[in-house]
Amino acid sequence: MSADPAFDATRIRDSFAAQSLMQTFGASLTRIAPGLVEIEAPILPCARQQHGYGHAGLTFALGDTAAGYAALSLMPPEAEVLSVELKINLLAPAIGERLVATGRVVKPGRRLVVVSAEVEAIRDGSRKLIALLQGTMIPA
Amino acid sequence: MSADPAFDATRIRDSFAAQSLMQTFGASLTRIAPGLVEIEAPILPCARQQHGYGHAGLTFALGDTAAGYAALSLMPPEAEVLSVELKINLLAPAIGERLVATGRVVKPGRRLVVVSAEVEAIRDGSRKLIALLQGTMIPA
Amino acid sequence: MSADPAFDATRIRDSFAAQSLMQTFGASLTRIAPGLVEIEAPILPCARQQHGYGHAGLTFALGDTAAGYAALSLMPPEAEVLSVELKINLLAPAIGERLVATGRVVKPGRRLVVVSAEVEAIRDGSRKLIALLQGTMIPA
Amino acid sequence: MSADPAFDATRIRDSFAAQSLMQTFGASLTRIAPGLVEIEAPILPCARQQHGYGHAGLTFALGDTAAGYAALSLMPPEAEVLSVELKINLLAPAIGERLVATGRVVKPGRRLVVVSAEVEAIRDGSRKLIALLQGTMIPA
Repeated sequence: MSADPAFDATRIRDSFAAQSLMQTFGASLTRIAPGLVEIEAPILPCARQQHGYGHAGLTFALGDTAAGYAALSLMPPEAEVLSVELKINLLAPAIGERLVATGRVVKPGRRLVVVSAEVEAIRDGSRKLIALLQGTMIPA
Repeated sequence: MSADPAFDATRIRDSFAAQSLMQTFGASLTRIAPGLVEIEAPILPCARQQHGYGHAGLTFALGDTAAGYAALSLMPPEAEVLSVELKINLLAPAIGERLVATGRVVKPGRRLVVVSAEVEAIRDGSRKLIALLQGTMIPA
Repeated sequence: MSADPAFDATRIRDSFAAQSLMQTFGASLTRIAPGLVEIEAPILPCARQQHGYGHAGLTFALGDTAAGYAALSLMPPEAEVLSVELKINLLAPAIGERLVATGRVVKPGRRLVVVSAEVEAIRDGSRKLIALLQGTMIPA
Repeated sequence: MSADPAFDATRIRDSFAAQSLMQTFGASLTRIAPGLVEIEAPILPCARQQHGYGHAGLTFALGDTAAGYAALSLMPPEAEVLSVELKINLLAPAIGERLVATGRVVKPGRRLVVVSAEVEAIRDGSRKLIALLQGTMIPA
């Protein structure tokens, strides 16, 4: 129920905790609000591409997960969320201490939820936008 | 040089071996041809989403990597490859023993290489298409 | 009913005829089969971009319409089709006598239909792939 | 030169005036600023889909053109702009008196310019977001 965001937060925290990939990446949920979810993760040695930067798969996984839970935060209590499709533009290499992915609901809906996500890299205390995602989630 | 595919294969194998995320996922290069690269990986316990299926981040990472190396296979010897943008449609859950991602060059180019990738799940010996990617790579 | 493709063809022909934009572009349905629809159009003087080539909006409109009717061809008799989202990669300028858009169903479904489309330019009798689309349609 | 936005405006106005499709759609440039271009158009009888709403091809064409000129506004004086790829999510039918497309540069660059666009429908004086685009432009 949107009147009880605490419930949504628990549902999202439990689901997130069940995603082994998020644990592999050392990711944590840092913000849950109706229609907005933020996830942070370090760029671990296990998640790199060939130049030692964060792999696009890491960036995508964080953005997808943040956007998916942003969608779930506005879905009915019994729903689960599925990613239908996502488009990612990679703007800069994933270099820094950690990544922050912020997922947002652009348009809620009973059948389809349109979402976006930004992924930023934190390096020496400054933030840089490194990826932009736009896509569609559905209740499952 | 496209006249010497062995060279390209070495370049791609070396670059792939330097991607720690591919090792984390237990992925291996199973086919390298001019304009086509195939990568296989099991769905490891460390790469799951909340229902125990392969995470969309795993599927994306394999498709992106296969498509990127397909692009690299047609680039000049000194080039490296960067993902500019990718669109993924997730067609079915990643369930099975392993995933096979096949990346292809749709249109080569000096400045931009348009690529696609299919990701299939192998389950009890049968293959099922689970994701389709379309995107753009550039030489770096 | 997929057992009666003639019915589907009529439904698609009627819907296509009601699209004024297709008339503005001089487009015609040239092939209707289960899961595949082809549309042809000249590159009219009214549909150009600043260099006199076909506008990306023309290419997109043909690809979207072909993909949408490919989806509709597999939907229940009473359904109509809506475009949810589409990604287009523009591979070459739209130069030539006419464009041919071929829409295909990649994965049918009750709730979501994943589609692709290719747009080719015909110039002096030869065909060139100028755009690739991938997207999602839903029954409405 | 970004120090002389008047020059850019003229370049964009001239290029826009040469796009016959924009004339066919009755479109006009309503705002030009560094990194932001707005285009308005009525939903003319010639640009409809089968239910009498604006065709997705109209919505896409306005969004693509606004995003392209937003990119051009930040390019060197001699450059022209080409659409590489665009992703559109259609959020609601194009119903109303007119559409307003606002294109923005998300990340400028010498080789690639990442853009977004929003398309809104104006109906009885109220605005509704009907489409969101994200894509890539290059100097040509």
